[in-house]
Amino acid sequence: MTLKIIPLGGLGEIGKNMMAFEYEQDIIVIDAGILFPEEDMLGIDFVIPDISYLIENKDKIRAILITHGHEDHTGALPFILKDLQVPVYAPRLAHGLITVKLKEHKQLNESKLHSIQPGTKIKLGKLTVEFFRVSHSIPDAMGIAIHTPLGPVIHTGDFKIDHTPVDNHSVDYIRLGQLSSEGVFLLLSDSTYAEVPGYTPSEKVVGETLKRVIGEADGRVIVATFASLISRIQQIIDAAILNNRKVAIVGRSMINNVKMTMEMNYLHANESIFINPTDLENLPDNRVVIITTGSQGEPTSALVRMAKTEQKDVQIKSGDTVIVSATPIPGNEKLVSRTIDNLYRLGAKVYYHRNESVHVHGHGSQEDLKLMLNLTKPKFFVPVHGEHRHLIAHASLAQATGIPKQNTFVLENGDVLELNKESGNVTGNVPGGRVYVDGGRVWKMHNDILRERKSISKDGFLVVVLPYNVKTGKISPHPKLISRGFIDSIQANKLYPKAYEVIYQTLEETRKLNQKRGQTNTSVKNALIKFFYKETGRSPVILPVNSEA
Amino acid sequence: MTLKIIPLGGLGEIGKNMMAFEYEQDIIVIDAGILFPEEDMLGIDFVIPDISYLIENKDKIRAILITHGHEDHTGALPFILKDLQVPVYAPRLAHGLITVKLKEHKQLNESKLHSIQPGTKIKLGKLTVEFFRVSHSIPDAMGIAIHTPLGPVIHTGDFKIDHTPVDNHSVDYIRLGQLSSEGVFLLLSDSTYAEVPGYTPSEKVVGETLKRVIGEADGRVIVATFASLISRIQQIIDAAILNNRKVAIVGRSMINNVKMTMEMNYLHANESIFINPTDLENLPDNRVVIITTGSQGEPTSALVRMAKTEQKDVQIKSGDTVIVSATPIPGNEKLVSRTIDNLYRLGAKVYYHRNESVHVHGHGSQEDLKLMLNLTKPKFFVPVHGEHRHLIAHASLAQATGIPKQNTFVLENGDVLELNKESGNVTGNVPGGRVYVDGGRVWKMHNDILRERKSISKDGFLVVVLPYNVKTGKISPHPKLISRGFIDSIQANKLYPKAYEVIYQTLEETRKLNQKRGQTNTSVKNALIKFFYKETGRSPVILPVNSEA
Repeated sequence: MTLKIIPLGGLGEIGKNMMAFEYEQDIIVIDAGILFPEEDMLGIDFVIPDISYLIENKDKIRAILITHGHEDHTGALPFILKDLQVPVYAPRLAHGLITVKLKEHKQLNESKLHSIQPGTKIKLGKLTVEFFRVSHSIPDAMGIAIHTPLGPVIHTGDFKIDHTPVDNHSVDYIRLGQLSSEGVFLLLSDSTYAEVPGYTPSEKVVGETLKRVIGEADGRVIVATFASLISRIQQIIDAAILNNRKVAIVGRSMINNVKMTMEMNYLHANESIFINPTDLENLPDNRVVIITTGSQGEPTSALVRMAKTEQKDVQIKSGDTVIVSATPIPGNEKLVSRTIDNLYRLGAKVYYHRNESVHVHGHGSQEDLKLMLNLTKPKFFVPVHGEHRHLIAHASLAQATGIPKQNTFVLENGDVLELNKESGNVTGNVPGGRVYVDGGRVWKMHNDILRERKSISKDGFLVVVLPYNVKTGKISPHPKLISRGFIDSIQANKLYPKAYEVIYQTLEETRKLNQKRGQTNTSVKNALIKFFYKETGRSPVILPVNSEA
Repeated sequence: MTLKIIPLGGLGEIGKNMMAFEYEQDIIVIDAGILFPEEDMLGIDFVIPDISYLIENKDKIRAILITHGHEDHTGALPFILKDLQVPVYAPRLAHGLITVKLKEHKQLNESKLHSIQPGTKIKLGKLTVEFFRVSHSIPDAMGIAIHTPLGPVIHTGDFKIDHTPVDNHSVDYIRLGQLSSEGVFLLLSDSTYAEVPGYTPSEKVVGETLKRVIGEADGRVIVATFASLISRIQQIIDAAILNNRKVAIVGRSMINNVKMTMEMNYLHANESIFINPTDLENLPDNRVVIITTGSQGEPTSALVRMAKTEQKDVQIKSGDTVIVSATPIPGNEKLVSRTIDNLYRLGAKVYYHRNESVHVHGHGSQEDLKLMLNLTKPKFFVPVHGEHRHLIAHASLAQATGIPKQNTFVLENGDVLELNKESGNVTGNVPGGRVYVDGGRVWKMHNDILRERKSISKDGFLVVVLPYNVKTGKISPHPKLISRGFIDSIQANKLYPKAYEVIYQTLEETRKLNQKRGQTNTSVKNALIKFFYKETGRSPVILPVNSEA
């Protein structure tokens, strides 16, 4: 009688995008998210988990449970539901977001999507699950308790401890305490900020900054943040009202999210507070707050276009105050910096994470994580949602709270951890790697193509067409060169005539040596590599191709 | 009678790699550095300043003055000295490093390179310059005072305030005080950390950590840091000696730098403390410290190879302690994180900037910058060495210390600031952009090629060879497809036969329409774009080429 825990997918982060729990004939999957590609995955749209193990064990899967509505927990659904036609349970807001996504992919009708409330118990084979509230940077974030014959298993989902949350929903300490009194068998907990000492501040801290900065501003105030950070948007609206300003929403995803969360009652504001961006000029600058996207410096986002004076409704001008209410996600630092520089250049005052308390994050820090450990007092502990070093840091926090080292498991994606009443062991591996989505489609085994993209991106490529006579099988002396990303036309006009000479000479030599077509191609290629390296210092990918003459 | 200040080159950072000072018939250049390319500059080795203005005014240039030996202040010399045969003055250690570099480029004989001591005055036309000591993350770092008819101009170079420096060289406060008493006309000061509140800690802080962590380690200790951070290397050696351990140096640049700085007397250690990496196995693990490169996660560095167990002398094993004594430079975060994860996976204990005080940086923070401002009390102030927002932050620090706003100038690269006794104005612009080095050679006007590299890196390319009959001018029906970075061979085997059908069909249509060769090529290209987008969701760069049949 063992419980299997299998983190699946993710790019460096373990169990972030998907986890499987298997007990005898039942499998439960938690989350189904995407990750954005790393810098060396040229041309890749995003990365999804490898679900081969789940496809193999399709009949056992009882449900996919979604913890909250962020893309890194929901975004893979349109790609995996084709292969796994299983029920999906999600909190109300996540349910709304997933509905939109599945509609876009024309998959809503086939899918079995259910909205759940915290506290509702769902029987899934021999397992029963229930969702409980946590605080995170999107409303309706939940953790999941799985009632197993071995005892309750608690998966925190992404969470922070916020004692003064903007939406009034804290972590459900009471339910966790009750579960704890049953004797928690296993805790899986968010490790994203396990390296950060202390406590994560409350979302309310940002509200104070917003009120003050908007209160002090003489002109327009433009606030950029994540479109899914509904509590932040609520606080910006509240600060605007307090300062007798109207609110305009700019940026497609911000407009969509504000509309939907107003309708679903997650965002609270009187309709009359909003004005259309096109009507901004009818109000004095100091009566306006603009909420927009682009806090990560995304090249096509509204804030970035404002900072380049390319946005149709709002262009930054001297006297504006811009608040970038976010911190750059690793990899986005330069995009964000460039945007801030451009805003300054246009004369704006800019408040950002380096010079003001404009953001708090949605994950617990070390003291918060210790609280979760002490509240649940689990027998076994598996740190999840983090890269290897974060899990290591979280495991050592767990050990500090008294969990024995041998009951703490730092896993890799694809590891199969088997737990029985007494102990646990990694007993095997399933495919837990990355699967790419490119051109909107799922592609496995992409590594050769990525290698090719990388090599042609370095010095470009050069195709040399060598026509050959079908009758004689000989290569005729009418070669043709074509390149991209290698040299400019001025250089080409200078070098190509010389390169043709090199080819003629090489063809002459190969004829003397009576070389076959393949050998001739290689000889020409090598001669060109040498010639162009000498002339330009570059090594483009050189491809000979024979056309029939 | 005006002094012109012209920041040149740099990538986002202003005046970092090069600045020009022009007074009547004399130009002095400070620094000549390189920058590493940004992620969208595919295949570029590095970026150097645009010196067109200097080439135009060659006769006026009296000297290039180097503040210290880091590559971002010296690395462009081999590329610009070909065009500007002017004397170069550099502090002793920088002189040594530049000598090595120019020798590699076979340019040492033609160059007029001089080593200077702090305090020595050099008359350069109507201007006189002198170097004064500052603290920075490499020994022999200097600021420069330029004595002009308008008063002394002070350029700090890169600096920090370190009251307990490892090499016993603080900023020369006394000389700065003397200059201040003459009435400083203009201060140009390092803005790299102008956003950071408080004081930058002394290099000695890291020494305490090193002593403690090495003292507590049971096995081998491997410390990775910058090869140019000689004070850090000194402190690692000192901590090794204190703990009765021998020192092995691994990594080409680390070996070279240790050797050179031992010979030049910047690094102090008894030869007997060192052992050869190949002899490591003859010593117990707890008698060994290994100093190495790779603190930025550079893919070919020694630490990264150790973490992949690919390094020939040292492979990480359980029981090792690794200290990554650096913070990741923006853009390197992921490389560093992956390296730390791999070290943990091999069973090492890892200390890095998130969990231990393993690094301090070499630039002054806000309170340090205020000290420099108050020590020099300049009439005019130009923040340099930073991106736009850093200069803005530094300018507001200057205004807080009492410098009038109209006497503070935030410049862009290429701006010409003209200062007279009373006031200053940006009066013009010279080329201040970036020049690329690719394949070891200088290339201007690279943007088209970079755009091509970017587009082929996204979805690869496809060349379609369409032979044509020279006599009839008609395209013959023997097309040929060749691609890279687009689809794999399995896909190609499936799709190419269909694509040939598409080509035949299109050729048939173009024949009916009596299309010319150029039109036919375009028709084929468009048909293939459509076909492959439908089949794969991808849009490779498609290039038709006609070969003679």
